[in-house]
Amino acid sequence: MECNRETVGQESGVCRMSTKKLGEQTVALSDPPSIVGHANVVGKKEGEGPLKETFDYIDKDDTFGQPSWEKSESEMQKQALTGALDKAGLAVAELDFLFAGDLLNQCIGSGYAARGQDVSFFGLYGACSTMGEGLSLAAMTLDGGFGHWTAAVASSHFCTAERQYRNPLEYGSQRTPTAQWTVTGAGAVVLAKEGPGPYITHCTIGRVVDKGIKDANNMGAAMTPAAVETLKAHFQDTGRAPGYYDLIVTGDLGVLGRELLLELMGREGYDLYANHTDCGILIFDEKEQDVHCGGSGCGCSASVLTGYLLGGMKAGKWDNILFCPTGALHSPTSAMQGESIPGICHAVAISTRK
Amino acid sequence: MECNRETVGQESGVCRMSTKKLGEQTVALSDPPSIVGHANVVGKKEGEGPLKETFDYIDKDDTFGQPSWEKSESEMQKQALTGALDKAGLAVAELDFLFAGDLLNQCIGSGYAARGQDVSFFGLYGACSTMGEGLSLAAMTLDGGFGHWTAAVASSHFCTAERQYRNPLEYGSQRTPTAQWTVTGAGAVVLAKEGPGPYITHCTIGRVVDKGIKDANNMGAAMTPAAVETLKAHFQDTGRAPGYYDLIVTGDLGVLGRELLLELMGREGYDLYANHTDCGILIFDEKEQDVHCGGSGCGCSASVLTGYLLGGMKAGKWDNILFCPTGALHSPTSAMQGESIPGICHAVAISTRK
Repeated sequence: MECNRETVGQESGVCRMSTKKLGEQTVALSDPPSIVGHANVVGKKEGEGPLKETFDYIDKDDTFGQPSWEKSESEMQKQALTGALDKAGLAVAELDFLFAGDLLNQCIGSGYAARGQDVSFFGLYGACSTMGEGLSLAAMTLDGGFGHWTAAVASSHFCTAERQYRNPLEYGSQRTPTAQWTVTGAGAVVLAKEGPGPYITHCTIGRVVDKGIKDANNMGAAMTPAAVETLKAHFQDTGRAPGYYDLIVTGDLGVLGRELLLELMGREGYDLYANHTDCGILIFDEKEQDVHCGGSGCGCSASVLTGYLLGGMKAGKWDNILFCPTGALHSPTSAMQGESIPGICHAVAISTRK
Repeated sequence: MECNRETVGQESGVCRMSTKKLGEQTVALSDPPSIVGHANVVGKKEGEGPLKETFDYIDKDDTFGQPSWEKSESEMQKQALTGALDKAGLAVAELDFLFAGDLLNQCIGSGYAARGQDVSFFGLYGACSTMGEGLSLAAMTLDGGFGHWTAAVASSHFCTAERQYRNPLEYGSQRTPTAQWTVTGAGAVVLAKEGPGPYITHCTIGRVVDKGIKDANNMGAAMTPAAVETLKAHFQDTGRAPGYYDLIVTGDLGVLGRELLLELMGREGYDLYANHTDCGILIFDEKEQDVHCGGSGCGCSASVLTGYLLGGMKAGKWDNILFCPTGALHSPTSAMQGESIPGICHAVAISTRK
């Protein structure tokens, strides 16, 4: 029995149909969907940072006009999505699917933002990797032939995260040197089956990796092993070297996580020193803004992607970006039960060319 | 300009490429994926109920051998997935993607179950609709050409849910008559691109619907409007009447929610009296087991689907089922802030024929 062009390999005498999978973890979109709209909204502190020119809206008091921080976060998702749809010239009802997630218990940031909106909704939980998860599924559903337009949105809010994960805001507790600062921000991306780009060409979907880190104030170290595994898989699956990309940008490993990543990838034979950066490092001025190891949260990578990164691609600064948000899949309950922190990372290749 | 067979409609003089979408919210799988493995595990109470013969494993003390209820829930997901993979004759590493979710904060039931497993992981949050969300995405990624095998898994545990959402277990608080009982159960389904069926033929992806219900002890009423909207969309999009299905089975509306659903659907001109049932009603003996309005939780629809329903289809009892799990996208925080309860429902058409 010989397998033909439409099949790959042979297992137990059965030809497997070929798919859009490359290697173990990567999908190659056959007709890469185009990013046709992107927008973000952020809080005051983010609006005072180095990326302030790349945000669509900066709220002056982080409330976004709402009476609770959780409602503020929902409002942020709504505003980011509306902004991205406006730029794409679309109404929300024209979206085939919306993929959304956040860090809150039961993902209420996303659920309440989508409430009453005229769109089929997929709720996600990928912690700070959510924008990578949402972008991948939004691209895959379009490339799979299930619609014309999809969107992905993710958010975090310093005040909702701080009181849910750490301490009441009023405590004003001292933070450890390895701590990161949860970004108040939301970002939305609208994808179309056809468009002028940039395009999503590949998605490497991560596995849940846990190397035994238990310090919830050192999330960079906890998430780095997942980033290493996903990056290795991406390079192996695609046959690309790190130098293929103008920029390889992780989500929120922060200063310490970045150092670890560069070292661990170096040991695996991949040199990322020349072209790696991290959204958590980019979004704040580490020294001036007292954020210790940098920014974090779903909104960190979401707001940096939808401003600085996609804006830069459109301005001709970069042609190929590998966007790799990382998430920590633990909870206060699992931490109290002595569990270590599992991480995940999804890598999304974005290119100005199909 | 005329649009041809490959295009549908015409907008601003541009022919839209046709897609696998039917109407507003439904996708029709072009080559329906086959369910090739399904399994479930449940707790003691579920194992004493009317469906006891349909469960693969019944734990004697609900701990599943673990030192905390949260770890028990993760263990349940692992066992359900392993069981479904065994029946399919697959190893976890052969799965292209795993879609998983649960009710716990930060979905730790799923994250820790997937930890260290050799599979690309998509974390979902759809509350009790999760099995519908996961099945839809698992089917769509296969039909989209992204792999050969995918799986969806969902779980809930009475003890993790009770203490997270309501009261410490030790309180033994009185429950209201409209309350439901969170099912201790997990279910997993393995899908293949090719197989002998049953097949997933259509998925109607829900919107987030909120009719202002605020009573967290009356989730059936809160989720019913979402079920009504999704069922209406399904019938409109597919042109099918309720009678097309041998069984239309909602997730966990319970006794009260079912009554509401039948009445509201009747007002819309759809008679579901003959063939509607609800997993939350099926899984417990309402009178003998003191569960008030019935079972609930992601694990309710997941364990009923993977036992009673799919087993019944294989035994020739039913040829066409519309599986419609419903979820409530609120949280204790949103309830304390006076918010009403948004619901969502995804409908998945399962047939013994392609």
